[in-house]
Amino acid sequence: MSQETTDNAKPDQRSADQSTKSQNAFKHVAIIGLGLIGGSIASALRQQGSHLIAFDVVAQNLADGLRQGVIDEAADSVEAACENAALIVLAVPVLQMPALFQRLKKLDGIQGKVITDVGSVKGRMLESLLLDGPLLTNFVPGHPIAGSEKHGVMNSDPNLFAQHKVILTPHAETDTAATISVAEMWRSIGAEVSEMSPTKHDLILAQTSHLPHLLAYALIDSLSDRGDSFEIFDYAAGGLRDFSRIAASDPTMWRDIFSSNKEALLDVLDRYVAELAELRNMIETDDQKSVHGILDRAKSARDHFSQVLKDRHKK
Amino acid sequence: MSQETTDNAKPDQRSADQSTKSQNAFKHVAIIGLGLIGGSIASALRQQGSHLIAFDVVAQNLADGLRQGVIDEAADSVEAACENAALIVLAVPVLQMPALFQRLKKLDGIQGKVITDVGSVKGRMLESLLLDGPLLTNFVPGHPIAGSEKHGVMNSDPNLFAQHKVILTPHAETDTAATISVAEMWRSIGAEVSEMSPTKHDLILAQTSHLPHLLAYALIDSLSDRGDSFEIFDYAAGGLRDFSRIAASDPTMWRDIFSSNKEALLDVLDRYVAELAELRNMIETDDQKSVHGILDRAKSARDHFSQVLKDRHKK
Repeated sequence: MSQETTDNAKPDQRSADQSTKSQNAFKHVAIIGLGLIGGSIASALRQQGSHLIAFDVVAQNLADGLRQGVIDEAADSVEAACENAALIVLAVPVLQMPALFQRLKKLDGIQGKVITDVGSVKGRMLESLLLDGPLLTNFVPGHPIAGSEKHGVMNSDPNLFAQHKVILTPHAETDTAATISVAEMWRSIGAEVSEMSPTKHDLILAQTSHLPHLLAYALIDSLSDRGDSFEIFDYAAGGLRDFSRIAASDPTMWRDIFSSNKEALLDVLDRYVAELAELRNMIETDDQKSVHGILDRAKSARDHFSQVLKDRHKK
Repeated sequence: MSQETTDNAKPDQRSADQSTKSQNAFKHVAIIGLGLIGGSIASALRQQGSHLIAFDVVAQNLADGLRQGVIDEAADSVEAACENAALIVLAVPVLQMPALFQRLKKLDGIQGKVITDVGSVKGRMLESLLLDGPLLTNFVPGHPIAGSEKHGVMNSDPNLFAQHKVILTPHAETDTAATISVAEMWRSIGAEVSEMSPTKHDLILAQTSHLPHLLAYALIDSLSDRGDSFEIFDYAAGGLRDFSRIAASDPTMWRDIFSSNKEALLDVLDRYVAELAELRNMIETDDQKSVHGILDRAKSARDHFSQVLKDRHKK
């Protein structure tokens, strides 16, 4: 993490930022779920000399991972994959986490390993794990803010996380040493690590990712729902094209994300709808000055954001 | 225009589609307003041997246009630019149209020329012209659905309109021959021409362009309005990035568009907000099946749209 970012770090981000030199200490790593994210972590860590073993319910994913050199070894069960691993990375859909933890908890020596995940919702996920008893102290929940329109292990990219944010959301009982080692693993493959509460993570992601996806899905559906056989899309300009790109994501995954993070999502949606109502009123009453004020403020925020992206790519 | 599109043409689109071979019959063309759109039309027509003269209130734009070879000649007034032109292209902001028409109507021989424009709102613009008396029968309102994040005559591109839609919205008194000649001019520079009523145009643009821009501006403003110094944008993933791109457009231009097309815009906004409320209710009540139904329908529409774009680029 760069010096600038460290200077701006909030107190609750300090522990993950302690080390500026990053080194991955995990020689044996297990990946459970070998898709784009799991495969990209695997190939990045393998380049550093770690031994990678993976399990996936779809055998073809393991075969592809072996052929592509993403992993060293395919396991035939979760248990076999985890047996000798010092780090276990869970890269499965959020809703599969409770069942997976029931199995992990039964493993011999599980307390001596470090466990992390990559799910995009944290609060509700942790709550669902708590239904099954205390959380493992060596479990460090995490979420890389990275992805691609491409899917699957065949598109694995060891540089997927370079200059991208990873948010760690340790729970109340998470061991600090485990958190630090996961942060170092992420930094060793180029990511910038932040630490925050699960609640704050879910609010930020509701704003920056879940709400935009919800709005885009609703817009595309609203436009296509007028019985004119998509004629409208023949006249689509840039505006609609940008929206439609993000509505191309997997409906099942997004249904689950909306459901898993519904409290934060509905909260930011309500604020958004209130802002829309305000803007609607300004347009209806020809309050040109106020409309311009909002548009101008949005453009300033956008220009700031654009600069953030440029700075990130310069590093 | 391709044969497939012609076969699908509605009766009200026929007149602009009569000719499949396109030839620009205008040897002398005046451009009023030399920005990206005016400059791109000029450079495309100039490549075909037309003589291009332009006027712009900003003298630098004319100087740039001359130096870049976009135009042949710079005029020092609207009147001087139009004097010998067979075609006059008005590429100025929508709100400047009434004052411009007052001047055009006073020109000697104006009835012998063809006039068109490129504004993105049609109905209200025509209404505002009617306040000043009958519309010119040789005025063919038009709107190319093309643009770029870049602005200004320096970014003129003779291929900007290739494979892009141009919508003509002749008014009740527009001369058919004038409409056909404007359609042929557009086709000669690669555009696909459709014809529809001003009202239908404004509804389609409200849906495909004005509403998406409004939603994007509101989202960016809503997120940046929380007193956390844009911290949120540090965690922005793909979803927000796509929205923020379209919120980068000029606030003054968009304030004017929202105002000029407010009836259609508020109508589609209200339908959109109703759909959002429905989706909100499904998420709140954990109606997973209905949420998935909407997401899936949106993805199908998006995939169709994506195919439309691919087909367009193949031509």
